[in-house]
Amino acid sequence: MSTNALPAQSGDFPAWYGEVVRRAGLAENSAVRGAMVIKPYGYAIWETIQRELDDRIKATGHENVYFPLLVPASVLAREGELVEGFAPELAVVTEAGGKQLEEPLAVRPTSEALIWSTYARWVQSYRDLPLLYNQWANCVRWELRPRLFLRTSEFLWQEGHTAHETEAEAVAEALTILHDVYADTIESVLAIPVLRGRKSESERFPGAVETYTLEALMRDGKALQTATSHYLGQGFARAFDVRFTGRDGNEQHPYATSWGATTRLVGGVVMAHGDDRGLRLPPRLAPQQVVIVPIAREDERADVLPAAGAVADELREAGIRVRVDDRPELRPGFKFNEWELKGVPVRVELGARDLAAAAATVARRDGGQKEQLPLAGLAAAICDLLDDVQAALFASAREERERRTLQDPQSYDELIEYLGEASGFAVAPWCGDADCEARVKADSSATIRCLPLDEQAAEAGACVCCGRPAVTSAVWAQAY
Amino acid sequence: MSTNALPAQSGDFPAWYGEVVRRAGLAENSAVRGAMVIKPYGYAIWETIQRELDDRIKATGHENVYFPLLVPASVLAREGELVEGFAPELAVVTEAGGKQLEEPLAVRPTSEALIWSTYARWVQSYRDLPLLYNQWANCVRWELRPRLFLRTSEFLWQEGHTAHETEAEAVAEALTILHDVYADTIESVLAIPVLRGRKSESERFPGAVETYTLEALMRDGKALQTATSHYLGQGFARAFDVRFTGRDGNEQHPYATSWGATTRLVGGVVMAHGDDRGLRLPPRLAPQQVVIVPIAREDERADVLPAAGAVADELREAGIRVRVDDRPELRPGFKFNEWELKGVPVRVELGARDLAAAAATVARRDGGQKEQLPLAGLAAAICDLLDDVQAALFASAREERERRTLQDPQSYDELIEYLGEASGFAVAPWCGDADCEARVKADSSATIRCLPLDEQAAEAGACVCCGRPAVTSAVWAQAY
Repeated sequence: MSTNALPAQSGDFPAWYGEVVRRAGLAENSAVRGAMVIKPYGYAIWETIQRELDDRIKATGHENVYFPLLVPASVLAREGELVEGFAPELAVVTEAGGKQLEEPLAVRPTSEALIWSTYARWVQSYRDLPLLYNQWANCVRWELRPRLFLRTSEFLWQEGHTAHETEAEAVAEALTILHDVYADTIESVLAIPVLRGRKSESERFPGAVETYTLEALMRDGKALQTATSHYLGQGFARAFDVRFTGRDGNEQHPYATSWGATTRLVGGVVMAHGDDRGLRLPPRLAPQQVVIVPIAREDERADVLPAAGAVADELREAGIRVRVDDRPELRPGFKFNEWELKGVPVRVELGARDLAAAAATVARRDGGQKEQLPLAGLAAAICDLLDDVQAALFASAREERERRTLQDPQSYDELIEYLGEASGFAVAPWCGDADCEARVKADSSATIRCLPLDEQAAEAGACVCCGRPAVTSAVWAQAY
Repeated sequence: MSTNALPAQSGDFPAWYGEVVRRAGLAENSAVRGAMVIKPYGYAIWETIQRELDDRIKATGHENVYFPLLVPASVLAREGELVEGFAPELAVVTEAGGKQLEEPLAVRPTSEALIWSTYARWVQSYRDLPLLYNQWANCVRWELRPRLFLRTSEFLWQEGHTAHETEAEAVAEALTILHDVYADTIESVLAIPVLRGRKSESERFPGAVETYTLEALMRDGKALQTATSHYLGQGFARAFDVRFTGRDGNEQHPYATSWGATTRLVGGVVMAHGDDRGLRLPPRLAPQQVVIVPIAREDERADVLPAAGAVADELREAGIRVRVDDRPELRPGFKFNEWELKGVPVRVELGARDLAAAAATVARRDGGQKEQLPLAGLAAAICDLLDDVQAALFASAREERERRTLQDPQSYDELIEYLGEASGFAVAPWCGDADCEARVKADSSATIRCLPLDEQAAEAGACVCCGRPAVTSAVWAQAY
C-alpha cells in the first residue's frame, strides 16, 4: 500500500481511477493485454453484485444454465447482424488437441447464437414456452483501448436468454429485467441512480429490435451504460429455425430477449462514489461495512484489544460485516488512510479514553463526520448509521446528476458546448433522424445515451439540431 | 420426457448413465464436440455443490479472485512438467481482433502458470504470506472420448492456489482442503463415501510433489476421482521466480498448493446413487427435496389443490425445498415416474381419501417405502425423513463399497481377475515400484487409485505383484 496521495479526482480523473482501482486492491493488469486479474477485494464486491442480481433473477422466475465457451464459426455466422457486430472483437481458437481444427471456434463474445441453436431442440409447442434462462459466465471481446473493469478483453457477466409465445410477453420480460432486476440492484444496492430508457437505432445491440438501458452519471460528467436488456423480436428464432406449434395449431417463431450486466459495474461504483481519498462503498455492497481500529499504547493493548474484539462480536451478532485491524506494526493514521482508500463505510476507533467514557469514536467514510457514541446500544446505532450512509450516497449521486443535467438547451451551440466539455447529461428534443444524432457526435463526441421511458406523451418541441418537430426527448452525454 | 423405460443399470451401465443424464434434464451434448450444455436441473445441483464448497473454502480462510482465461504460450511454458502434461489437451487462440496474434494464447487448462507469474509481483516478504486464493472458473482440456460431466472438453470448477512460508504449512493446507473442504462436502452433502489417499508418482498432477485424492466407488464397480489437492513444493515458485525475504533475512522460494473440484461431481452423484428408475438425490443436494402430487378427479380438484398448496406452504416454512406438481394434463403415474427419474427424495401424494383421514401418503425415493402420515406435524416428520434419506443413501453407498472391496487378495491372479472385471476396489501391499504398478495396469486396466492416508504404521507384508517387501498398501480399481 503506497502512502503517496492519490491524484486529485478533479485534476486527472483517468489517473485517479486507475490508482484507486490498483491501490484499493480491486484489480490489476495481467500478462494478456486487456485482460485483468480481479483481486480479492474487487472480487468480493463482484460476489455481492452477483448474489443480489441472482436473487432477483430467480425471484422473477428464471433458472440458471451453462452453455459452452466455444462457438463454431458456422453457428455464429447464422444471424447476420450479430456476427457483423462482433466480428472485429472475436478471439478465435484454431488449434486444439494438437491439431488444426477443421472449423474455427470463437470464444463467446455473447451467447445468443449458441443458445438459439440449442433452443431449436427445446421448443416444439407453446407448452414449452416461455424459456427463462440465465447464465453466469466469462466473455471475450478483443479490446484495443482497455481500462480495468470498464473495457476489458475478458469480462465476467450474467447473460439471460428467454423465448416467449408473444411479442407483448417478450417486451414485458425485457422491461421486468430492466426495472426489477437491474435498476433495483443498481439503485438500492450500488446506490447509483440510473436513467431508464431505450437506445436509438444506432446504439442498439446487434440483432435487437429494441435495446433498453440504464444510464448513470460518473463524477467526471461522463455517462456509464450500467446494464442493458434487449427485445430481439423473431430474428434469432428465424436465423436458427426455432418454431413452435401455437395455440391455434399453426407453426410460428418465438420472440426473444437477452440481457446482461458485467464486472463493469465495479468500475461504475468507483466512478460514481469515489473521492480524493479513494473508494466510498455503499454499505449494502461493502465486503467490510465497519472497521474497528484499536488505538493503544503498548501498555494499553491488554485492555483495548479485548474490548475491540467484544465490540466486533456484538456488531457481527447484529449482522454487520466487521473487521478488527489490530496490526501492531502500523500507526492508526496509516490504517485510517488505508480503510478510507478501500471505502469502508464506517470506522470505529477505540482507545483507552473512549473506554473510560464507555464510548467509541465513530467516523463515516461518506461525509467524514466523527462522533463519540456510547458502547451501550452501539450495534443498533451503527445499523442506523449504515442505512444513513447508504441513503446519503444515493442522494448525493442523484444531486450530482441533477446538478450536471442541462435541461432543454436554448440552442444547438449551447448543447455542443456543454457536451463537448463532458459536463454531464443534456436533455433535449430530437427529431429521430440519425443525421442529427451523427452531427452532435461529430461536433462534441457525445452520443444519445437513451430516450427516456418515463417521458410524458410527446410534447410540442423542435429538434435541438435541425428545428424540425421532435418525436421524443433524448439524453446526450459523452460516455465510457 | 420419454416414457420408455431406462436401460437396466446392471445391463449397460454407460447407456443407463447417458439416458439418466439426458432424461432427468441434467445436461446434453452441444454443437462443440465434447462440450456440454448444463441444463437447469443439472446446474441447480452444481449451484448447491458450489455454495457448499465455497462456504467451506471461505471458512478455512480463503478469498476468491479471478485470473484471465487466456494464458500466453510463453507463460505456460515456464514450468516444464505442467506444459508437458497439458500440451496434448490445449485449445489455442491464434487470432484475435481480426489479426493473427504474435504469441498464441492457450485457453486455460488449469491456472498455476498464470497465477504464479502474478504471485511474483505479490510476494516480497514473509509478511505477504500465506496467499490463500481460490477462483471459480471454466477450463478447457481437449477430450477425445467425452462423456457428459465425467470427461468434457470444457468443465466448470474451482481451483485454489496458495503460497506458504514453509513446507509444513503448505502440506497442512493441502490436507485441510482434502479433509475439511472436499471430503466433508462430498460425504455430508453428496452422501458419497470417499477413500482419502495419496497418488502414486505415475498418477500425480504434473508438477506436484504429492497429490492427495478422494476416491469414490460407483455402482458399476469403477472408481471416480472426486477431488484432488496438490502439494507443489517450490517448483512453481522457482519456475516463475517468486521469492520472499524470510524471517531470517534470507531470500527464499515459497511453497505452493493447488486444489480443484469440478462439474464431474454431478456425474459422481448419478453413478454413486442412481438406480433403474433414475437419479436418487441426497436431500441436502436436491433442488427439490419434496414434490407434492395432488391426486384428484375433476370434481375433487377444488378441495385437493388448495390443501396441497397449504401443505407446501407449511413445508416451505420449515425450510424444505418443495414443489407442487399440479399439471392437470398429466396422470399421477406419469408424474411419479418423472420425479423418480429426477431423484426427488420424498414424494407426498395428497388425495380426497388422504384428506378425509387428515393425512398424506409419503413415499421415499431411496427405498421406495410408502406410508400414510398425519397432516398434523407433517413438516417435522418430513424433516426427519429427509435426514433419514440422507443418512440411508450414505450408508447404502458405504455398504456397497465395502461389499465390493477385496481386502488382501491371496495371489496376483486373484487381484487381476477381480480388477479385470471391474468388481470394485482391491487393497493389497505394494513395494512402491512403478514396474509392478504398470504390470497390473497392463494385465487388468486398473490403476492405483490411492495409497490410503489412514494406514497404520507399515505392516509386515509382501508386494502382491513381486513378493518383495511392501512399503505401503495400495488401493487399485478401474477408474473413470
